[in-house]
Amino acid sequence: MTSLQTASPPPIDGIFRALSDPTRRRVVERLNLSPASVSELAHPFDMALPSFIEHLKVLEGCGLVHSQKTGRVRTYQLAPEPLKLAENWLAQQRTLWERRLDQFDAYVMTLKEQEK
Amino acid sequence: MTSLQTASPPPIDGIFRALSDPTRRRVVERLNLSPASVSELAHPFDMALPSFIEHLKVLEGCGLVHSQKTGRVRTYQLAPEPLKLAENWLAQQRTLWERRLDQFDAYVMTLKEQEK
Repeated sequence: MTSLQTASPPPIDGIFRALSDPTRRRVVERLNLSPASVSELAHPFDMALPSFIEHLKVLEGCGLVHSQKTGRVRTYQLAPEPLKLAENWLAQQRTLWERRLDQFDAYVMTLKEQEK
Repeated sequence: MTSLQTASPPPIDGIFRALSDPTRRRVVERLNLSPASVSELAHPFDMALPSFIEHLKVLEGCGLVHSQKTGRVRTYQLAPEPLKLAENWLAQQRTLWERRLDQFDAYVMTLKEQEK
């Protein structure tokens, strides 16, 4: 392993950080159904609009959502690539973990064979 | 959708937050190979030990790792369940997204059929 002092954090940092908040995860879930305006997105949340808009900014900052303004209405839509990036890292960890379990199973089987 | 003001944040918040840091992700990757002591884990990082131990505390706090002290050596091991929880949420979003794309494809095909 090499040192981890990097100049700028990789985008996956921001993706995981964005997803660590329940409001932001709910917005992702909502945008997974269809694009939506700020007021449509804000409606289910018991939260002041400026605070809610900060959450949207975090999601847009890490690339999880894109927005477009038409007249006075800003519409948000999901960008699925960052979700895939995070899922891939997790899937990779699971694969490694499962391989380790398989190796452990094989080792236990070898021990049992030797006992016979 | 209902209001999101919950008393205590669900564990998935802490999991995503823990994974938003590159040092902590590298520790997870390392522990995926085998359990390891604090000094083994800290070795590849150009970081003061107290700061590194804070990262281990974050990982243990959200259940991603467990530790056990034998004599003066504390050994850490990975607990894969929280990773699965995060991966499942992401996989669910991907499934929804792909279903929406399929529906969109079907809609476009219908339009093309109508044009003929």
